[in-house]
Amino acid sequence: MTQVENDPQGSQEILAAMHPHTGRAHIVGITGSPGSGKSTLVARLTRVFRERGHRVGIVAVDPSSPFSGGAVLGDRIRSRDLAGDDGVFFRSAASRASLGGLSAATADHISLLDACGYDRICVETVGAGQSEVEIAQHAHTTVVLQVPDAGDHVQTLKAGILEIADILVVNKSDLPGADSTAAMLRAMLEVGGESGDGEEAAWNVPVLRTDARAGIGVDEVVDAIEDHVAYLRASGRLRCQEFSRAEQRLESALASALLHRLLSVVGEARVAAAADAIVSREIDAHSAAGELIAHMDVLRGTPPTHHVTEA
Amino acid sequence: MTQVENDPQGSQEILAAMHPHTGRAHIVGITGSPGSGKSTLVARLTRVFRERGHRVGIVAVDPSSPFSGGAVLGDRIRSRDLAGDDGVFFRSAASRASLGGLSAATADHISLLDACGYDRICVETVGAGQSEVEIAQHAHTTVVLQVPDAGDHVQTLKAGILEIADILVVNKSDLPGADSTAAMLRAMLEVGGESGDGEEAAWNVPVLRTDARAGIGVDEVVDAIEDHVAYLRASGRLRCQEFSRAEQRLESALASALLHRLLSVVGEARVAAAADAIVSREIDAHSAAGELIAHMDVLRGTPPTHHVTEA
Repeated sequence: MTQVENDPQGSQEILAAMHPHTGRAHIVGITGSPGSGKSTLVARLTRVFRERGHRVGIVAVDPSSPFSGGAVLGDRIRSRDLAGDDGVFFRSAASRASLGGLSAATADHISLLDACGYDRICVETVGAGQSEVEIAQHAHTTVVLQVPDAGDHVQTLKAGILEIADILVVNKSDLPGADSTAAMLRAMLEVGGESGDGEEAAWNVPVLRTDARAGIGVDEVVDAIEDHVAYLRASGRLRCQEFSRAEQRLESALASALLHRLLSVVGEARVAAAADAIVSREIDAHSAAGELIAHMDVLRGTPPTHHVTEA
Repeated sequence: MTQVENDPQGSQEILAAMHPHTGRAHIVGITGSPGSGKSTLVARLTRVFRERGHRVGIVAVDPSSPFSGGAVLGDRIRSRDLAGDDGVFFRSAASRASLGGLSAATADHISLLDACGYDRICVETVGAGQSEVEIAQHAHTTVVLQVPDAGDHVQTLKAGILEIADILVVNKSDLPGADSTAAMLRAMLEVGGESGDGEEAAWNVPVLRTDARAGIGVDEVVDAIEDHVAYLRASGRLRCQEFSRAEQRLESALASALLHRLLSVVGEARVAAAADAIVSREIDAHSAAGELIAHMDVLRGTPPTHHVTEA
């Protein structure tokens, strides 16, 4: 796995060889604000999955997750709890990769766990902005965690959070406000649901309450995940998900391969010179990109008649 | 601006024409967890900047920001407060764009505001995972908001948050725990500072306390931002920042242009067929990308002797 992260070129053969063995795992995304108890819930879900005979892979995209080891004040006990069980595999994808790198690396990690026979894969990401959209791309089932709103501060529910949630969980349900938060979420789901198209058999997003630290309500979350698996299969949505995931991975692989080729043909010095010209306001990024691509074509001897950049 | 978002191809001319007029604005990134009071602080900072004679652009990348209008329960009053002042321009970049799209759109928004003479640009993003890294790429000065930790729950400070912070702000300093949170942050900065290289004149990250709702401590944050501007200029770091930002934008423009070209040469049907083959496990994404690129070369008549994909 470390090879996949550090040597994307050399590991392509491994990924290619593994690919036929993938597609069997159910991928569960768990997302929520920092402090909502994602890691604790993941550890609890893992234990229940294990009890039910599944092999569990965990990918922590959140750099603050104790699973990733990146937390400054993290409670590592939760992950230590599960260590030594060879039916459980942890992996952090908390790379500081550039544009799109995080997403591509996560997809590769998931594929490898899948190929190795882990049939339930939990992907933990901090739920905010772009990461949310990404988790929804990777996961079959997206579980969104909320914490009870004590009512003192207006908890701004992020726009789009209801759209990506397949299962809503109010964690830390021992805290005050759990009832009203769950009720508020249900009300918002009802409002949102009206605008949806009534054609296809709809999935009713359940709002569950857990106290992950005490292990309360976790079985119900696993039940809901398994219900969602069955729904995806029966409705044909699984196939749609797989297709759009394949498109995403293809696009990312194409962008990476095309960029690498341009760099190797044109040379890093010329790309650096173009960046310098952007800094000194001689040219803008889009125009500089067009010039570099045209230069690559000249070097590669592409006939100008077939030149379609301007199309 | 909407044109830049919705018609990236057609707007390239505008961006190219604007580029020579950019590079004058100081870009301030404001990041923090949901509920940390980012939007309120941005509104307060904007007012102080205006009092000091600056024109202020605001780009809200956070979809939950009231500036972006995407909040379900957001308090819009804060943004309405500033409406009607033509020295202030709001813009939401809360697009649901795919891979890297958010980042590229944000960069374009910033450039346009810059070219239009807004000399202080506040970019508000929810601080989590990848978004943080992105804001640090866009901003000259990154302000990280924290809320007081009442000590009841262990607030996991995200790894990497100290690395990207140029200014740390403990907002809602009227709440209990503000003192201890500020002290903890200072202690963590001291520990982190020891591992840094002692060569260059270092910037000492200030830890400030604000009550943005009441407008307390905001002047000090603006002072710290202006100090940081002076430091960046004097140390030569501004030029380094500009270069790495130009590299990022160039890479993103290259990836986008190369992908568009491949699509137009090879055709969408063939790309969709490749995605189908990935779903049915006939081929993996990396290999499929290689085949599509080879096919594009054949269609464009590129001599095979110049073929360097395998290099």
